[in-house]
Amino acid sequence: MSDESKAILVLHGPNLNMLGTREPEIYGATTLAEIDAKLQELAAELGWPLEAFQSNGEGELVSRIQQAAESNSGVLINPGAYTHTSVAIRDAVIACRLPAVEVHLSNIHQREEFRRRSLLADIVVGQIIGFGADSYLLGLRALAGVLAAG
Amino acid sequence: MSDESKAILVLHGPNLNMLGTREPEIYGATTLAEIDAKLQELAAELGWPLEAFQSNGEGELVSRIQQAAESNSGVLINPGAYTHTSVAIRDAVIACRLPAVEVHLSNIHQREEFRRRSLLADIVVGQIIGFGADSYLLGLRALAGVLAAG
Amino acid sequence: MSDESKAILVLHGPNLNMLGTREPEIYGATTLAEIDAKLQELAAELGWPLEAFQSNGEGELVSRIQQAAESNSGVLINPGAYTHTSVAIRDAVIACRLPAVEVHLSNIHQREEFRRRSLLADIVVGQIIGFGADSYLLGLRALAGVLAAG
Amino acid sequence: MSDESKAILVLHGPNLNMLGTREPEIYGATTLAEIDAKLQELAAELGWPLEAFQSNGEGELVSRIQQAAESNSGVLINPGAYTHTSVAIRDAVIACRLPAVEVHLSNIHQREEFRRRSLLADIVVGQIIGFGADSYLLGLRALAGVLAAG
Amino acid sequence: MSDESKAILVLHGPNLNMLGTREPEIYGATTLAEIDAKLQELAAELGWPLEAFQSNGEGELVSRIQQAAESNSGVLINPGAYTHTSVAIRDAVIACRLPAVEVHLSNIHQREEFRRRSLLADIVVGQIIGFGADSYLLGLRALAGVLAAG
Amino acid sequence: MSDESKAILVLHGPNLNMLGTREPEIYGATTLAEIDAKLQELAAELGWPLEAFQSNGEGELVSRIQQAAESNSGVLINPGAYTHTSVAIRDAVIACRLPAVEVHLSNIHQREEFRRRSLLADIVVGQIIGFGADSYLLGLRALAGVLAAG
Amino acid sequence: MSDESKAILVLHGPNLNMLGTREPEIYGATTLAEIDAKLQELAAELGWPLEAFQSNGEGELVSRIQQAAESNSGVLINPGAYTHTSVAIRDAVIACRLPAVEVHLSNIHQREEFRRRSLLADIVVGQIIGFGADSYLLGLRALAGVLAAG
Amino acid sequence: MSDESKAILVLHGPNLNMLGTREPEIYGATTLAEIDAKLQELAAELGWPLEAFQSNGEGELVSRIQQAAESNSGVLINPGAYTHTSVAIRDAVIACRLPAVEVHLSNIHQREEFRRRSLLADIVVGQIIGFGADSYLLGLRALAGVLAAG
Amino acid sequence: MSDESKAILVLHGPNLNMLGTREPEIYGATTLAEIDAKLQELAAELGWPLEAFQSNGEGELVSRIQQAAESNSGVLINPGAYTHTSVAIRDAVIACRLPAVEVHLSNIHQREEFRRRSLLADIVVGQIIGFGADSYLLGLRALAGVLAAG
Amino acid sequence: MSDESKAILVLHGPNLNMLGTREPEIYGATTLAEIDAKLQELAAELGWPLEAFQSNGEGELVSRIQQAAESNSGVLINPGAYTHTSVAIRDAVIACRLPAVEVHLSNIHQREEFRRRSLLADIVVGQIIGFGADSYLLGLRALAGVLAAG
Amino acid sequence: MSDESKAILVLHGPNLNMLGTREPEIYGATTLAEIDAKLQELAAELGWPLEAFQSNGEGELVSRIQQAAESNSGVLINPGAYTHTSVAIRDAVIACRLPAVEVHLSNIHQREEFRRRSLLADIVVGQIIGFGADSYLLGLRALAGVLAAG
Amino acid sequence: MSDESKAILVLHGPNLNMLGTREPEIYGATTLAEIDAKLQELAAELGWPLEAFQSNGEGELVSRIQQAAESNSGVLINPGAYTHTSVAIRDAVIACRLPAVEVHLSNIHQREEFRRRSLLADIVVGQIIGFGADSYLLGLRALAGVLAAG
Repeated sequence: MSDESKAILVLHGPNLNMLGTREPEIYGATTLAEIDAKLQELAAELGWPLEAFQSNGEGELVSRIQQAAESNSGVLINPGAYTHTSVAIRDAVIACRLPAVEVHLSNIHQREEFRRRSLLADIVVGQIIGFGADSYLLGLRALAGVLAAG
Repeated sequence: MSDESKAILVLHGPNLNMLGTREPEIYGATTLAEIDAKLQELAAELGWPLEAFQSNGEGELVSRIQQAAESNSGVLINPGAYTHTSVAIRDAVIACRLPAVEVHLSNIHQREEFRRRSLLADIVVGQIIGFGADSYLLGLRALAGVLAAG
Repeated sequence: MSDESKAILVLHGPNLNMLGTREPEIYGATTLAEIDAKLQELAAELGWPLEAFQSNGEGELVSRIQQAAESNSGVLINPGAYTHTSVAIRDAVIACRLPAVEVHLSNIHQREEFRRRSLLADIVVGQIIGFGADSYLLGLRALAGVLAAG
Repeated sequence: MSDESKAILVLHGPNLNMLGTREPEIYGATTLAEIDAKLQELAAELGWPLEAFQSNGEGELVSRIQQAAESNSGVLINPGAYTHTSVAIRDAVIACRLPAVEVHLSNIHQREEFRRRSLLADIVVGQIIGFGADSYLLGLRALAGVLAAG
Repeated sequence: MSDESKAILVLHGPNLNMLGTREPEIYGATTLAEIDAKLQELAAELGWPLEAFQSNGEGELVSRIQQAAESNSGVLINPGAYTHTSVAIRDAVIACRLPAVEVHLSNIHQREEFRRRSLLADIVVGQIIGFGADSYLLGLRALAGVLAAG
Repeated sequence: MSDESKAILVLHGPNLNMLGTREPEIYGATTLAEIDAKLQELAAELGWPLEAFQSNGEGELVSRIQQAAESNSGVLINPGAYTHTSVAIRDAVIACRLPAVEVHLSNIHQREEFRRRSLLADIVVGQIIGFGADSYLLGLRALAGVLAAG
Repeated sequence: MSDESKAILVLHGPNLNMLGTREPEIYGATTLAEIDAKLQELAAELGWPLEAFQSNGEGELVSRIQQAAESNSGVLINPGAYTHTSVAIRDAVIACRLPAVEVHLSNIHQREEFRRRSLLADIVVGQIIGFGADSYLLGLRALAGVLAAG
Repeated sequence: MSDESKAILVLHGPNLNMLGTREPEIYGATTLAEIDAKLQELAAELGWPLEAFQSNGEGELVSRIQQAAESNSGVLINPGAYTHTSVAIRDAVIACRLPAVEVHLSNIHQREEFRRRSLLADIVVGQIIGFGADSYLLGLRALAGVLAAG
Repeated sequence: MSDESKAILVLHGPNLNMLGTREPEIYGATTLAEIDAKLQELAAELGWPLEAFQSNGEGELVSRIQQAAESNSGVLINPGAYTHTSVAIRDAVIACRLPAVEVHLSNIHQREEFRRRSLLADIVVGQIIGFGADSYLLGLRALAGVLAAG
Repeated sequence: MSDESKAILVLHGPNLNMLGTREPEIYGATTLAEIDAKLQELAAELGWPLEAFQSNGEGELVSRIQQAAESNSGVLINPGAYTHTSVAIRDAVIACRLPAVEVHLSNIHQREEFRRRSLLADIVVGQIIGFGADSYLLGLRALAGVLAAG
Repeated sequence: MSDESKAILVLHGPNLNMLGTREPEIYGATTLAEIDAKLQELAAELGWPLEAFQSNGEGELVSRIQQAAESNSGVLINPGAYTHTSVAIRDAVIACRLPAVEVHLSNIHQREEFRRRSLLADIVVGQIIGFGADSYLLGLRALAGVLAAG
Repeated sequence: MSDESKAILVLHGPNLNMLGTREPEIYGATTLAEIDAKLQELAAELGWPLEAFQSNGEGELVSRIQQAAESNSGVLINPGAYTHTSVAIRDAVIACRLPAVEVHLSNIHQREEFRRRSLLADIVVGQIIGFGADSYLLGLRALAGVLAAG
């Protein structure tokens, strides 16, 4: 079993800071802050501390993942647009050597062809795709399971 | 909210009947019967009846999905090898008009190139991939959430 | 001229048994039984006995085509989803050595990219695509013409 | 039901004027004039006036389709070689807003690879392929059916 | 600076003669004659004579471009469907040795995949795409700028 | 050395039941029963019991391979058309953990392009292709050699 | 008509800050400041306030576009190298829900093959490509036209 | 030996009428008329009448090739830009059933990638590429040889 | 039946001379000389003389195959690396007009992607792949069978 | 004009030494020696000495081309199978800096797909394809013309 | 010879700051600081000042390369993950007009397929790949050689 | 540490014997002999004996690499044109089990597309590309480092 004194790191990629404040008819009225609050609640229930970080910058996300190597127990990541373009985030996740779970709000297979390829898919433990804000909560459960089995 | 008097249908594709009885060092010692038992338990907790069906035959799976249109509320499906080759199952899932969730035990993105394409991915609500037997349990939670929001 | 004592075989692939009973706003209210009845009527008019067979199973369709080699004069086939995936049905049609006509209810070129490829297209006499239930009737006329010229 | 005072337009693409006068062992002894006569006969039977036009020029075919917007009720088209290369004819058929049916004498799927792609396939109502001169007659029946249902 | 006694040539490809007279809800109510009139007005303002030519025929467009070598100062071209299929028009534009600007009414990148490739794109000075009738007016300004800088 | 009390399993895929009874000028006059008899004779000579199974159904073949895990020593398989389309049979062969040899009557590289890809090729011990009924006999020798070396 | 109290946002991608200060024989002697000044002048003439922003960072550009949702009326963007690689900027432009026009100084179709693909092309109103600094001025006119028609 | 009372037909595709009158530094100062004169001279020497035809129109070229079926003995063709795009000319050459030789002034393999594919290459007797005006003269010798061996 | 006074030719391509003397843990301890001896033994048993030839040079292999046209009855070939790159050996095998059988020690489908394509596969009688030194012996049996049926 | 004291080099690639001695019904009864004799005769007529060289070895052909840099005036090459596979011969032809003409006996566009690509096509002056032994004679005329124009 | 008063710039891309501090069994125990120290030592020996810069951010790397145009003599760059995705860094290297050498610690051709493409490869002087920390030292020697030859 | 009594083998592929004697303006005036002399000098300095071998023949290069297995300590190879086409040399390098370094004089990424693929890249220790004769010297240093670390 992993060290539960280290928090689970939740990473939100570019444009996810816009959630809920605009286009509620499309993405729902849930803001990123509300998602983070729900995650905190579930994490507490599951017995894990949890930290969340959002950035629009690829480099900032890489740097935050690097820090996780020391200070976190696992990574729950919605890489947003960088899912399809960032080898740097892939490399950071590999380098930090923590179990990672990839989540997506929308079903990326129902959108543009280029969104079907994830550069993280084969180096994370698993993926959860298409359940809106619930993707994060399911992902947290999945990650907690992986850490418990670890 | 959907009609909770209709059971959730769990579908297991070809070769999943072999789970747990062979190669426990690879797939774990959990048998398909044990997975079904865990699913029954969680379904009860979530307030849904649940039925499970396994077949090695594409046509049998198609026929079972067709029946679901009348008698089930949603579909939790691990299509196994048919994920990558069956347009017939895709068509049956579309035709039954029920919300469906696709699950996979292993991370299909870490295996042969041809396993990365799912013929169901863009017509199900979402996918859960890579968490072993937990993929089913997470998938059931996800489907219950979709049905509750329905 | 072919032997008119042998019936024309009409084959319906997977999911076609669902026609008319569900989603009438999409596929029309015509059931498969009604299509078969119209085909019987036209066949009688054209002077041919006619038998129809539907299955969701690739193997069952292969076996039925094999029997046709002895007992039928020609094949009118809507392979449904197997159009795009079944080499076995292709091989059975070649092996039975009867003239075959391929029909589709919908225009397969207006749908997913993978539906544009038919594994039967180059081994049948011809194709009739996109005219709903009329595709079958036109296909029967076409096949009768081929048999008459045979 | 469509306006039956407007004729159905039959369009023959490049090289179809050569039919029957050369290589009768390949294409049969039926000339284009004979096909048009048969079409006139069947059209009369079905209650539609019918006009036929052949050209080797892409621009001439485009212009004739444009005129159809005003003066015809539907289009039966064998685009010949332009099937595979003409976006201009595709655009004209879209612009004229009439139901169109695509026909081919030979089975284009049994020939060169590049003949398998039709630039019209996804914008016509349907296709009839491979029945020789009968393709036209079946196509006229199909179009009449579409107009009647219109 | 170029010789302003030679007119700018405006070329309209196939089907553009249909503009405004049909489907005003899609393409707007502006006819090709009205676009030409606006272009004449702006050309006068910019100090250039202007001639316009439309044809549905690839060969006619090629011939008109050949004449431009002697009698025109620059070419503003909306090749329509020939954008994607005509090497002959590409060769004529190269051969006439005049600066050319390519314009499109609609955003060709929002349509069928095959419309994303222009056979002129790399041999014209530049492209203006997606602004309806304004594409022509912006294109005329662009060409006038190129000629002035010439 | 493997356990010689368990029979070698010979599997024949779809349409192979038609061998010899039709088109003897193409496939020869040898029936599947005669091939099985020859295999029995050679197996006896090599000291192995042998069982043969033919099915047109993908699911039936999968189920038979699953049973082999317990009751057979090795698999000699001519997957017929499923060679090119069945991931399910591939998975069953992997799961049964027995040495397998793939055989083909005809030279699949001289036929349609899609027949050049075998979904079994990289998971069997080896392939024997193109020697008619002798392919089976050579394959049995090869498999016996593998089992002897086992 | 749009709200003219909100400025048009001009975005310059990576390396555009180098314009005019280096390699004047290639890119001309015009600096980015001079382009911005010309844009201010034309914007004033057209009755719009205008703000310009340059960054070498993908994340910074994403953040600036997010702010535009509240404070700007439209976006004129030269994404530079990010044209071909940034899904994040694409997503930000979609999310900000403002009309956007894409401009390029050089003709991207005359350069490396990978520059022919723009990840913005199908989500902006239109593109203006290849007219040097004039691309920006034409783009501003185009955007003003779109806003006026808005 | 072929009938020498029928002339050899020389066909020049689009833009070849511009030869020699423009860009002599590129294509040389030889006009198409001069090439035709040289061909007449060589044809006389070889004992064949010769007719030449140039058109910018695909349809006109098709029609001229159709006439050749009756009135000519062989075809020497430089299809220019239609080499890469015209299935109609390909079909006409096949239909006229005369030996044909394809020639090109420039080496089409040293130019744009799309010029490397000729739609005539596999249906003509042979190709002569890259020798300027001499390509025609060599092609005439080649065709005369084919006719003599005929 | 073929002329048994002419020897069967066994050809070994590049690097096969290294067999057995190096890396016995990978390729086994069997040398090429020992394989040739086993082949001689089996050939004698089957009633055929046999000659073996190894070369690292493509040209030498081509020359030896050319000689076979006169002096040998059939060819058993392991082309080694030239399997995937040599059109010259393909042409020589075609030109010598003898039945040929292709063998490989290792399963080429389990190695690099480029090893899956054999330039000989469609012009030999058949292939035997993956059985180590036994591939040669099985291949000799196969070839003897072909010659006997010859 | 080039130095006529240096001979034209004729190169024949692999398997061309077999010409005429085998399969006369396919390749004609003309031997390579007879082709060389005809070439000598025509070369004398054109005023050029001529040397011919054949090899089955890629390296030998490379070495002979290297020598040509000093001792020959031009290269007439039929690379045979190496046309499609040899970068080394391509590099040697570039390095020798002599004008080269590529010839082929058969029409390589009527054969296997891989024969349509020539690795020499874009670095020779031109190609002559499909005229049997006449390809060489036409190629010699073509090369003599290039040298004369030199 | 270049101006030796300007330092050579060493650029380290994303995740290279992690070197040596983690996973020493994989990447060795050498830290980035130690590599920089070795480079300083060798640079002093070769007579060049040297500056090193690492960033996880694409934009920061672009900005640093832009500054090099004024203040550095050459660029030694290990772009890390941006090798495969950054057109912006490519453009910055082109724009700075300094000789650049690309180095990689690991052999990028032994890893994922997408790592085989470098967006810098064709615009740098050369590449050094696969020698661990020595790649940098060899790259510095190479760059010093280029600058000396400058 | 490796056995320093065995020489490092330097291999030069086809056409490298031409270096320096022709086209000095392109490849420099350095001959292959001079490169070998420089390599001898540096090898002596580094404490290694060194042997060099050049051949235009693929088979000769394969044979020389095979001998290296016994008599050399490492391989420094510039495969020239065989870089892109020779699986045989790849196999020989693998079989000889010595560390190998691949070098190229020119930057192969700035040339024809097919030169970007090296069949050796993933089986050598590393590559050095683009530094002219210095590529060899850097490669020798790199190989010496690998052997020292050995």
